[in-house]
Amino acid sequence: MKAKPWLRNVAVVLVRPSHPGNIGAAARALKTMGLADLILVAPRRFPQADARAMAAGAADVVDAARVVRSLAEALADRVLAVGFSSRGRDLSHPALSWREMVAEVLGKARSEPVALVFGNETYGLSNEELLACQRFATIPANPAYPSLNLGAAVQVACYELAQAANTFSPPPRSPRMMATGAEIEGLHAHLMEAMAASGFLDPAKPKRLPERLRRLFARADLEREEIDILRGMIASLSSPKKRKRT
Amino acid sequence: MKAKPWLRNVAVVLVRPSHPGNIGAAARALKTMGLADLILVAPRRFPQADARAMAAGAADVVDAARVVRSLAEALADRVLAVGFSSRGRDLSHPALSWREMVAEVLGKARSEPVALVFGNETYGLSNEELLACQRFATIPANPAYPSLNLGAAVQVACYELAQAANTFSPPPRSPRMMATGAEIEGLHAHLMEAMAASGFLDPAKPKRLPERLRRLFARADLEREEIDILRGMIASLSSPKKRKRT
Repeated sequence: MKAKPWLRNVAVVLVRPSHPGNIGAAARALKTMGLADLILVAPRRFPQADARAMAAGAADVVDAARVVRSLAEALADRVLAVGFSSRGRDLSHPALSWREMVAEVLGKARSEPVALVFGNETYGLSNEELLACQRFATIPANPAYPSLNLGAAVQVACYELAQAANTFSPPPRSPRMMATGAEIEGLHAHLMEAMAASGFLDPAKPKRLPERLRRLFARADLEREEIDILRGMIASLSSPKKRKRT
Repeated sequence: MKAKPWLRNVAVVLVRPSHPGNIGAAARALKTMGLADLILVAPRRFPQADARAMAAGAADVVDAARVVRSLAEALADRVLAVGFSSRGRDLSHPALSWREMVAEVLGKARSEPVALVFGNETYGLSNEELLACQRFATIPANPAYPSLNLGAAVQVACYELAQAANTFSPPPRSPRMMATGAEIEGLHAHLMEAMAASGFLDPAKPKRLPERLRRLFARADLEREEIDILRGMIASLSSPKKRKRT
């Protein structure tokens, strides 16, 4: 499944990032979740080799990052900006957990540009910067140590967005050749017959054995090949004389 | 709110990690989400300064990490192990997204030790290593670039666990001194009186004005101090002669 095109409406804004490595880590986080738009407000050092190195396969996102001088400039064309902070502060708008807020942000992003705003590694967002945002989100964390690495926080934020958008399903499994109902019934009948022949089962009074085996087979989620193996084993046990001579 | 003690039943196992920095990033991810148990299977370089540096405030988790020689040793006391992989491969157990699986893992972890298992940065988990796990989880990601950094993957996994456990609420806001119902009614009455006095409102035929203002006040979620300010403004407008002379 391809990334939903409207994820391109979501920019991640890093305000005054100190470490180029974190810019790269953030770029990688964006790309793994189908985002592409990275905006850097007054980065301390950029461009810099560490950013591309940490981005790994997302160096293209680093290369395309826009550098601006102020948060106002970054948000100029955005209809909604969400400021992330680990601190619960008294602000005019209440802090919600990012998961609670993500549906609203997705709703906007379907048609209009929005921004997720992250502060400096050490200082976070200033009150003034937070007040430039219309929403205020936290990533719920251990109160004894709520300090997510910048790249990790961006990863969690983008992950929640992609999950809430149901953007990416788990990778499709290689198709297993599942046994059909008829094949399972065939195994069951074969086994009942063998058990009757061996004297283990009295076909006139089977008690609960047939039912219990049916349940076991259902639980095992059998593949066609496994049916063949099992029936081969039953056949072999039933008629040992048919074994190949060595 | 303190971390739930049973989160201590969840170990994160890194198999053959190459970069000490990623061990540190993983340790930080654990601690931010209330986990503490890190197990390293045959790390290429450990202990090493980079691991503690990248761990920042979670250096204690790095210091307490157990180093073992094999995945079997790491899983010896675990009742359930979940192998993480970005690849959808044909395995005897199907890959689910981590979010779909997390409730089951939490259920186990309430009473017994479990493990989340992550492979090498470049190679991931081998098929043999995955088969040592009873479950197989993916973090849904951009199929064009599903390669989360190791520390970022551990962060997302631990975050989902803590969220599903509802372990941490958003940090409490500094308490706002909210206006009481009586204070809001006081403001309302004051305003109605002033409007009647000014001739804006006919108290005999108020139409919908009182109701509309009540709704506006309810939406505004007023603080006590704001009530005082508003009533001061109304008073001042109603009796301009009372202004202080300069």
